[in-house]
Amino acid sequence: MKATAIANANIALVKYWGKRDKKLVLPYNSSISMTLDGLSTVTTVEFSKKYEKDSIIINGKELVKDEKGILNHIERIRNLANIKEKSKIVSKSNFPIAAGLASSASGFAALTLAATKAAKLELNEKDLTILTRQGSGSASRSVCEGFVEWYKGDKDDGSDSYAESIVNKNHWNEFRMITAIVTKTEKKVSSRSGMAQTVNTCPYYKCWLETIDRDLELIRNGIKNRDFSSVGQTAEYNCLKMHALMITTKPPIIYWTPATMEIIDFVREQREEGIECYFTIDAGPNVIVMCLKKNEKKINKKLSELGGVMKTIICGPGDGAKIIDKHLF
Amino acid sequence: MKATAIANANIALVKYWGKRDKKLVLPYNSSISMTLDGLSTVTTVEFSKKYEKDSIIINGKELVKDEKGILNHIERIRNLANIKEKSKIVSKSNFPIAAGLASSASGFAALTLAATKAAKLELNEKDLTILTRQGSGSASRSVCEGFVEWYKGDKDDGSDSYAESIVNKNHWNEFRMITAIVTKTEKKVSSRSGMAQTVNTCPYYKCWLETIDRDLELIRNGIKNRDFSSVGQTAEYNCLKMHALMITTKPPIIYWTPATMEIIDFVREQREEGIECYFTIDAGPNVIVMCLKKNEKKINKKLSELGGVMKTIICGPGDGAKIIDKHLF
Repeated sequence: MKATAIANANIALVKYWGKRDKKLVLPYNSSISMTLDGLSTVTTVEFSKKYEKDSIIINGKELVKDEKGILNHIERIRNLANIKEKSKIVSKSNFPIAAGLASSASGFAALTLAATKAAKLELNEKDLTILTRQGSGSASRSVCEGFVEWYKGDKDDGSDSYAESIVNKNHWNEFRMITAIVTKTEKKVSSRSGMAQTVNTCPYYKCWLETIDRDLELIRNGIKNRDFSSVGQTAEYNCLKMHALMITTKPPIIYWTPATMEIIDFVREQREEGIECYFTIDAGPNVIVMCLKKNEKKINKKLSELGGVMKTIICGPGDGAKIIDKHLF
Repeated sequence: MKATAIANANIALVKYWGKRDKKLVLPYNSSISMTLDGLSTVTTVEFSKKYEKDSIIINGKELVKDEKGILNHIERIRNLANIKEKSKIVSKSNFPIAAGLASSASGFAALTLAATKAAKLELNEKDLTILTRQGSGSASRSVCEGFVEWYKGDKDDGSDSYAESIVNKNHWNEFRMITAIVTKTEKKVSSRSGMAQTVNTCPYYKCWLETIDRDLELIRNGIKNRDFSSVGQTAEYNCLKMHALMITTKPPIIYWTPATMEIIDFVREQREEGIECYFTIDAGPNVIVMCLKKNEKKINKKLSELGGVMKTIICGPGDGAKIIDKHLF
């Protein structure tokens, strides 16, 4: 009863910010993301009678405080599989968790696939995304390859809130996301508590929701038609709308730092010079610059030279979660 | 037919962003400001047959392009007074216009008072604010002393959209606004065109308007009761709500620079250390730090030492527009 899975991080083009159901992790709006080739987490799960308690080792360190509810998720899977054995979980990411990249997305996707396999559950991809979602909302998107939509669904039981690929990873392999890791990372409000505060206090939240269907349609069609201008413009604007929600939450959630603004300025300057690129920003200070492969090197070079940029990571569209043979223990 | 007036700049605590009537300059919402002691513009206006055309000299330079509609405003006053004489206008501010401070506010307030006096019009303060408003909306607040409310009004003819002092300048003379001028001033979208774009394209605009009455009430009562925490918190939040509108306008209006974020961080850090201060930001990158007199020196010293801050200017509540004897020519 041991299995290992690998899953990639993802970055949203239409953002997820706010749950209509906290227990089942059902979002107020659908979201669309790209799964990032090469930014991966590998997780091995074993259920066995030899373990007296569950244990979790992430990047070589035993997890003491289970803030993200990993054990709840394991318990959920044990109940589904009707097993009692305790587990050992070992997980490794090839990117720094402190990078502010969605490590919980790749982590929960790999964890869910490995644990269900170890527990002898046979789930199809759709059901795997639904189960993953209950551990971490955005992780449901990391289950699938390429460009992915996570449907908000309408049902109370969450059975129609699942993720699926819009197109596979080869459909548009010129698309690039360059993540610029900035030097100064702020004290961070977690996404989980931040989005709950926004839903409760932000006066613009209902207006945000009214705009999402249009963004989804533009991005979905833009991806299908490989229309970079449409996808980039819509994603950048969607990101600004999300950060506008954050800064008008009570108390305000301000993720932007001086370095964030420096990169935003940079992207706008590049466009003025005719080099097409757009930015998106998750719940943190790092900026993701979107461009096409033909401009990747030029943009990455200049971006790396900015004062506030510590490191850049370039990714194209990547694989969904997969079982692999090589266990971590 | 020559008169000279002086008027101070003002900074809004509840912001004005968006006109319901562009011709009459009628706002969608009421706003509240503090008139800034010492940041003044002096303007001399003369109507005379000896002039063959209108001429405007601002800070020693003849105005070539009348982007702000100063001559329209002069024509408006000539029509009211039923005179035909051409004018000479000389205006001087004691703060750099490039500082991004509301130079058009002090400018239009001084201009309107000087020109009406030169044209022998006798207006009471209320009517003077209504006339000033038609030249520049926020300038109507600079006509009055201390803390000032500009009522949005409901009538189509604008006769109930005027400004008046909530309290005089001595009521709360411990209140301080420290303007931090930042090194890098961005290419600027003018307030006039920016707010028009917001009204036309920002999906959050209607939600903004729904929150304003509460902000006005809190700030009005806070000023009357000298409740610094309430005024500071509400003004800071109102400013964030306005900038959230700006960044979600199409195309986005992003006034914040790295230096802006540095000062925002600074203000939040000061509060965490128990030194009470708040920020507000107009349509530009400069940040205004609000504090009480007892903390003025301490905060100003640290603020001046920030990398992105070029200069600071400290102001308490100031006088409204006044006629003075000393002409500029």
